[in-house]
Amino acid sequence: MIDAILNHKSIRNYKDTAVSEKDLQEILEAGTRASTSGNMQIYSVIVTRDEEMKKKLAPTHFNQPMVTQAPVVLTFCADINRFNKWCEQRNAEPGYDNFLWFTNAVIDAMLVAQNCCIAAEDKGMGICYLGTTTYTADKIIEILNLPKGVIPITTVVVGYPDETPELTDRLPLEGIVHYETYKDYSAEDIDRIYAEKESLESTKALLEENQKESLAQIFTDNRYKKADNLYFSNVFLKVLQDQGFFNQ
Amino acid sequence: MIDAILNHKSIRNYKDTAVSEKDLQEILEAGTRASTSGNMQIYSVIVTRDEEMKKKLAPTHFNQPMVTQAPVVLTFCADINRFNKWCEQRNAEPGYDNFLWFTNAVIDAMLVAQNCCIAAEDKGMGICYLGTTTYTADKIIEILNLPKGVIPITTVVVGYPDETPELTDRLPLEGIVHYETYKDYSAEDIDRIYAEKESLESTKALLEENQKESLAQIFTDNRYKKADNLYFSNVFLKVLQDQGFFNQ
Repeated sequence: MIDAILNHKSIRNYKDTAVSEKDLQEILEAGTRASTSGNMQIYSVIVTRDEEMKKKLAPTHFNQPMVTQAPVVLTFCADINRFNKWCEQRNAEPGYDNFLWFTNAVIDAMLVAQNCCIAAEDKGMGICYLGTTTYTADKIIEILNLPKGVIPITTVVVGYPDETPELTDRLPLEGIVHYETYKDYSAEDIDRIYAEKESLESTKALLEENQKESLAQIFTDNRYKKADNLYFSNVFLKVLQDQGFFNQ
Repeated sequence: MIDAILNHKSIRNYKDTAVSEKDLQEILEAGTRASTSGNMQIYSVIVTRDEEMKKKLAPTHFNQPMVTQAPVVLTFCADINRFNKWCEQRNAEPGYDNFLWFTNAVIDAMLVAQNCCIAAEDKGMGICYLGTTTYTADKIIEILNLPKGVIPITTVVVGYPDETPELTDRLPLEGIVHYETYKDYSAEDIDRIYAEKESLESTKALLEENQKESLAQIFTDNRYKKADNLYFSNVFLKVLQDQGFFNQ
């Protein structure tokens, strides 16, 4: 089995060793081998290596230090712009400016992103996904000069690890896999599935530090609050409209 | 570099050799090693192996024969149901029933899907993504008994290949990668980027067969028509509302 997959850990501290041009090209090439809807490749990848550009992007990722520390930042975008331009130049009328094709383009872009990450890890590099991209897509669009038809979906930092973290916990397989039909979770199921996560030393330390009674509250009260979620959700929906993915 | 990534080809014909329980578990385990938003794992995987269930699913994938032919069908879903239930049982108020978290859940589910696919291919199996899932999500929800908070995003068939197709074409890297900022495509760029695809023998055969003047028209007039896209886009938006991802 592929070690790069089984040993994946998000890396948040990077050496200042550069990623070679050859390695970068091979990582991107691995990305393009991913399947996409109708082989339409409705995605784009923006490579950021310039220090000034990294500094501009940093606030959009809530100033996580790895954005400026890692040698390479990759922004994966849903992109119907290129395909639309091709259609228009070939006397064909495109009809991809809608929500279905936004979702298809997100799927495309994510399969490409994961291929790039596995290829980078297979080369001994580390990566970290930045979930902040969907929160600040409007600002990233401005900084990267993304035209209509293009929306950033996720960002990955790439470089040589300057830390060796442990594997992080995962829910047991029974918690995420269903056979034939979805068996909804009973209260006992939930207790059992989350038992290991809740009993981790790191969880206990978090509860102590934040004075919370449950790990779930750390998520709902500290990390991803309802009011913030709603605010950013509406910002992101407006991005879809502005970028031309909501012409129902 | 990882052969499974570089040699990926969608497989549409399968032997009737079963996928062993051990291999299936390892493929799913590889899936769970993917990064997810806040390690929340807001996805689920539905495994279909039962012949009757495959027959029920077949029409939702426009009766592509591989759905009933392949030994394993995996439906990857965005899933906030499990996380919500956990929150509610732990005196925490979840706020993930919105469009932002739909997108985050799609991202999660796709990274997991791609890990599973690469793991399967690394074991000598073949896979094919079924893009039909977003078109008929409403019907798949019924068949797989998906509760509120769960939406199928993509489906993958897995099994042992009964064909050895060639690698399919991809746009050149310059067509999908941008450095520092997005350089929008000129008419000459589009001509150059699509030149190889347009000059393929398979493309010429398609144009002849369909009496079309351009490959782009095959996409817009035959494969993914504007009217169909709009229809299915509205169906899918309603699925989001019905499944509780649009409480803005």
